[in-house]
Amino acid sequence: MGDSTATDGGDNRSSERNAAEEVYRLVEQSKELQESASTLISRNSQEDASLRQRALGLDSNIKMLRSFIDSSVKKGSLDSKHAEKLAEELSRARYTLSEGAAATYLPCKSHGSFLRMLLGPINVRANRKDVQLKAKEEYYSFRDRTAYLFLVFPSLLLVLRSQIWDGCFPALPVQLYQAWLLFLYTALALRESILRVNGSDIRPWWIYHHYCAMGMALISLTWEIEKQPDCAQKQKGIQLFLRWAIMQGVAMLLQNRYQRQRLYTRIAMGKARRMDVVWGETAGVKGQVWLLLPILFVLQAFEAYVGVLLLQTAVVGVVSEWQVVACGILLIIMAVGNFVNTVQTLVLKSQFKAKMKKGKSKNDLTQASSPKGSMIQKVALMIRTVR
Amino acid sequence: MGDSTATDGGDNRSSERNAAEEVYRLVEQSKELQESASTLISRNSQEDASLRQRALGLDSNIKMLRSFIDSSVKKGSLDSKHAEKLAEELSRARYTLSEGAAATYLPCKSHGSFLRMLLGPINVRANRKDVQLKAKEEYYSFRDRTAYLFLVFPSLLLVLRSQIWDGCFPALPVQLYQAWLLFLYTALALRESILRVNGSDIRPWWIYHHYCAMGMALISLTWEIEKQPDCAQKQKGIQLFLRWAIMQGVAMLLQNRYQRQRLYTRIAMGKARRMDVVWGETAGVKGQVWLLLPILFVLQAFEAYVGVLLLQTAVVGVVSEWQVVACGILLIIMAVGNFVNTVQTLVLKSQFKAKMKKGKSKNDLTQASSPKGSMIQKVALMIRTVR
Repeated sequence: MGDSTATDGGDNRSSERNAAEEVYRLVEQSKELQESASTLISRNSQEDASLRQRALGLDSNIKMLRSFIDSSVKKGSLDSKHAEKLAEELSRARYTLSEGAAATYLPCKSHGSFLRMLLGPINVRANRKDVQLKAKEEYYSFRDRTAYLFLVFPSLLLVLRSQIWDGCFPALPVQLYQAWLLFLYTALALRESILRVNGSDIRPWWIYHHYCAMGMALISLTWEIEKQPDCAQKQKGIQLFLRWAIMQGVAMLLQNRYQRQRLYTRIAMGKARRMDVVWGETAGVKGQVWLLLPILFVLQAFEAYVGVLLLQTAVVGVVSEWQVVACGILLIIMAVGNFVNTVQTLVLKSQFKAKMKKGKSKNDLTQASSPKGSMIQKVALMIRTVR
Repeated sequence: MGDSTATDGGDNRSSERNAAEEVYRLVEQSKELQESASTLISRNSQEDASLRQRALGLDSNIKMLRSFIDSSVKKGSLDSKHAEKLAEELSRARYTLSEGAAATYLPCKSHGSFLRMLLGPINVRANRKDVQLKAKEEYYSFRDRTAYLFLVFPSLLLVLRSQIWDGCFPALPVQLYQAWLLFLYTALALRESILRVNGSDIRPWWIYHHYCAMGMALISLTWEIEKQPDCAQKQKGIQLFLRWAIMQGVAMLLQNRYQRQRLYTRIAMGKARRMDVVWGETAGVKGQVWLLLPILFVLQAFEAYVGVLLLQTAVVGVVSEWQVVACGILLIIMAVGNFVNTVQTLVLKSQFKAKMKKGKSKNDLTQASSPKGSMIQKVALMIRTVR
């Protein structure tokens, strides 16, 4: 018995010693790790700062030289043909800078007050291109899911109205739909602002559009639609809005398909800034565009029509609430804004195409040996034009 | 004249040559920069990955050893006094790992579905501690600004009601206030989720609380309050809610002052995880806490009372809308949740204090030479307890 206690004591001591050794080993390791981590972080931030400096300097040199060349051409001290070639080379340098790994070290677009208010001063810019692309991809699938709901939700409401609700919407389901719209447009505005910070060339209008849509969803939440009698008359605006929303769902699905396809084609051709997101943008893959364009214009016209109709009901006096007027005005603003932006994009695209053609015939003569370089210059030119 | 043309031509040629040289220099530089950037990025991501591996391995080793020590004590193969000392050492190692530069390389808290839905898969974790602290600071000033509005907005509504609106709120100003609440709680939920991802130990309840408050704001937007007659009776709930909101504003200001002060004190003592954000947390700076605690409990009771009152008006039948019932239930849930979480925090704190005292008297005997180390262990222990 005495023996066994002694053995136990020995076991305990050795187990204690082992545990203690292991503990001190881990303590040492965590100190070492801490030191390597802080060394790495401080070295990285130094190297980042130096690259940032170089990128900034180079960027401003390119800009200065570009304006110098322009003014030289005007003064006549530089041959315009030669200047054009030099400008193309500069665009290529600028493209290398803004599209490659160095882009990480150029100052990014401002976060904007919407992001700053809702998220605080946190940085939402991803340093690695693959993370940016993942965000982009996820944005597209979010829009896909959204588009299906855009189809299903209003269709369901319209069917229920005619089948079950005897031609009159009850308030709650419509309000649920409006709350969903509010959430959706908030998410779209946040996500697109984040994509912009990450280098996407999305037109600012689309984000403003989402603000308008958020406002409209919020306002329509406060709008009493249930009051009897005359609900059919009063709810005509809502009914039209729901029909418009169904069309919008179809258009979103088409647009998503088209834009994804175009993006993949352009990435495959090495042409695109991969962060491009363009709502309602419309040229490129022919055929599909001739389906998409009329749908977009019809949608915009229909949106404006619903807006005008809402204003009319308010003027005629069927419904006197301010919400009707406000929603009407917002719908018209959104329709006009969408139309102007679609047309602007089309014009810029056709200008770009004309430039491409002109450039091509010239390049066939002068730069037949480097087709890829000339393509890059074209894209860089386009980027400058579209911005 | 012929001479001058020749000179001009010479000037042009030399200016062309200069411009061309400069252009090619910049093109070269941008290529170089591109190369250094991509080298740096790929080297960094390799080194990051290896540190991440080491941090993960070390973390799991610490956990394993801790449970080994616990089980050894239970089996009797390890002396409990000795085990406690070892556990403290382990806590210190874990603290070094989770609080220092190495924390960047430990896997971070999940972003949660709220952030993922609204922001997409973008990473909102700041790698540098100073950026995290800036986010924290900005969050406090956001809450300060918010607290003033929390005071001003409902006070104004109540004053206008008695002075101008003859005892009955018109719908629009109240709805504006509710829309502001919706925006505010969305921002708070987003910002606190982001702080959590950045290592703050904020209790999850406070984020759930904001979801409830968002729901309530949304629901109350759809609530018709203007219908005559009996507006005074019908609007009693709103009136009480506004009074509660004013008290809430005062409490927020006190809390902000108190928490900031406590945070600075704790940072100065080297004690705190600097990302701690604790709504309604209540121990530490004595004196102030005895002002804050009763106010918090009165607020919670008052919140529950408003909730019950809303339910009552619905039961009695003065107001039959579902919104009244829903808002009543949400208010009661929030009041109970706040109460439970405040009490839990208090209990944990007093447990921690007791441990501190016990630890102190022991450490006075055994570890008088390293007061700082023992402090760190205490904090590490606390962190484990509070989580």
